[in-house]
Amino acid sequence: MPVLPLAPGAAIGIIGGGQLGRMLAQAAARLGFDAIILEPEPESPASRVAAHTIVAAYDDPMALRTLADVATIVTYEFENVPVGAVEGLLALGMEVAPGARALAVAQDRVEEKSFLNAQGVATVAFAGADTAREAFEAVAAVGAPALMKTRRDGYDGKGQRWVEHAPDAAAAFEALGSVPVIVEAACEFTRELSIIAARGRDGSTAIYPLAENHHEHGILRRSLAPARADQALSDQAERIAARILAGLDYVGVIGIELFEMADGRLLVNEIAPRVHNTGHWTQDGCEVDQFEQHIRAVAGWPLGPTQAIAQVEMLNLLGDEADAWAKYAAEPETRLHLYGKREAKPGRKMGHINRVRAL
Amino acid sequence: MPVLPLAPGAAIGIIGGGQLGRMLAQAAARLGFDAIILEPEPESPASRVAAHTIVAAYDDPMALRTLADVATIVTYEFENVPVGAVEGLLALGMEVAPGARALAVAQDRVEEKSFLNAQGVATVAFAGADTAREAFEAVAAVGAPALMKTRRDGYDGKGQRWVEHAPDAAAAFEALGSVPVIVEAACEFTRELSIIAARGRDGSTAIYPLAENHHEHGILRRSLAPARADQALSDQAERIAARILAGLDYVGVIGIELFEMADGRLLVNEIAPRVHNTGHWTQDGCEVDQFEQHIRAVAGWPLGPTQAIAQVEMLNLLGDEADAWAKYAAEPETRLHLYGKREAKPGRKMGHINRVRAL
Repeated sequence: MPVLPLAPGAAIGIIGGGQLGRMLAQAAARLGFDAIILEPEPESPASRVAAHTIVAAYDDPMALRTLADVATIVTYEFENVPVGAVEGLLALGMEVAPGARALAVAQDRVEEKSFLNAQGVATVAFAGADTAREAFEAVAAVGAPALMKTRRDGYDGKGQRWVEHAPDAAAAFEALGSVPVIVEAACEFTRELSIIAARGRDGSTAIYPLAENHHEHGILRRSLAPARADQALSDQAERIAARILAGLDYVGVIGIELFEMADGRLLVNEIAPRVHNTGHWTQDGCEVDQFEQHIRAVAGWPLGPTQAIAQVEMLNLLGDEADAWAKYAAEPETRLHLYGKREAKPGRKMGHINRVRAL
Repeated sequence: MPVLPLAPGAAIGIIGGGQLGRMLAQAAARLGFDAIILEPEPESPASRVAAHTIVAAYDDPMALRTLADVATIVTYEFENVPVGAVEGLLALGMEVAPGARALAVAQDRVEEKSFLNAQGVATVAFAGADTAREAFEAVAAVGAPALMKTRRDGYDGKGQRWVEHAPDAAAAFEALGSVPVIVEAACEFTRELSIIAARGRDGSTAIYPLAENHHEHGILRRSLAPARADQALSDQAERIAARILAGLDYVGVIGIELFEMADGRLLVNEIAPRVHNTGHWTQDGCEVDQFEQHIRAVAGWPLGPTQAIAQVEMLNLLGDEADAWAKYAAEPETRLHLYGKREAKPGRKMGHINRVRAL
């Protein structure tokens, strides 16, 4: 275990070189840390703002050894880090935060919802299924229409499909590759919200205001924050966040996606043990954004303030939408955040803007 | 001349790898640019957040050729760039901003004050001197006590000394190395202020609120911004900034140090054709800080807003003062900016903090 709080000048390893790794690296640098990226792609967004990049598979043993030699603490930018990578680092005596438990829970949708329910946190009804027959039974149990998702992997709406009637379950199961799935009851939510929360090494927590999120084709399109919310709703969300953080003995920033129901209840849709797209608004809406907050938590620093200092509309720039940078640059209220990605594939997150106005 | 506005994905060359280059590189990355640093020190603050670093003397011909090959536009973080470096880049067809004229004026204190007076901008009385005898005459002309400074180089109070009586002029001249000097009349100012201003490629300007600055031993200790100032004072400062920007046909951010006199007049002390220590408050006090503003100007983008959104006290962390990072990290109102310098020599700028409160 390194000496904490980690002193500036130390190197923080980041597994993953995408935009989240990039913004984490920038935050780490502001606090005087060197960021070391582990990423198989040679020209990644994070590598271009980091002190060093190790270009290798996430679970390459030599690369992990190098990372352990150079970095004092390791974190990650995405939840699908191979378990072997984290185990390899732990075996080398490295400290990895948020840690293996958070990854295990977040990598398996059945584990995730079971964990949440065990914490007294509500979710939609769900059932796991490993075979086509179990898939049919699962849909029958939670009731059709139901959403079938692969238990592992899948993001931005990939790896999931709707089952309108229980007899269609087997076909959906096969279409998803005949891999273990989760079947979730349909949820008549009124809004999608999220809450970004952090927990320090000392167990202290810092929770940002709620964001209201709008998805298109399974991909986040925009967030509005702070979301319109009365005190009871905010309190409910904070209680949920606090239970999840404590239940995982968590260190770092977590993103928690919520469904708001007509009766005011919040259900947790999913958790992401990392900085989160719905928290990008904090870059221009809070004094300490989610990226610095994560670095503070991981480095054993005190957590920073989380109150909003502005009202923000965050808009993702997908694919060629980032070509409109000149338009956004000319808007006085718009802060532009571009990821330096070379190729603008359709739906690819190329950047985001935060439109800021006074509270 | 590159196509302007410069599209994200392009590389911006930055001559100089210190903290200003570092914060410029971070701002460039946020806008989607790659930063390429030219710096002789192998482990510079800027190199650890930049896409590439060319480790070579600023005027190394091969290095300049490499920089010209990789970068689309070049800027610099300090005014003592060798003229040969800029000329070398211009000869290779590179666009360099703020440009050779601004450098020539800022590198020579006699040229600088002559330029200012020619623009109708007031300074203290001054006279140049190349010999001990001329130095005596210069002190006699502007009146003792007077401040003698080397015409070139010198920063943070280095390369200058007070002359109490004209007969001491020759000794001071020799103590400064018998190089060309400027002799400046003593100035009974009431406050030291500065104004950070930017000018775009289209001649548009953006001017930040005044900062009030406090120096110790010739080194900036703290800035308070926006400074207490009535409309007449702000207008006077903005007129001065506008004249200087236009007179230099300037592109980029400039720092202008001012003396406020008892009668309300502002004299210009010196200009720095770059982002400026007294503008660090804009990182947490404005929506677009001086670093992004400079990148916007250099890249031919529209300039961003400059109004203050918070009251800021900026404090430089010199030498081992940065060892108190844990104390500052625990202050909710304090934003920490550390430069990643390995060795904390006395007086060396290791970082700064911005203490922020609502306007």
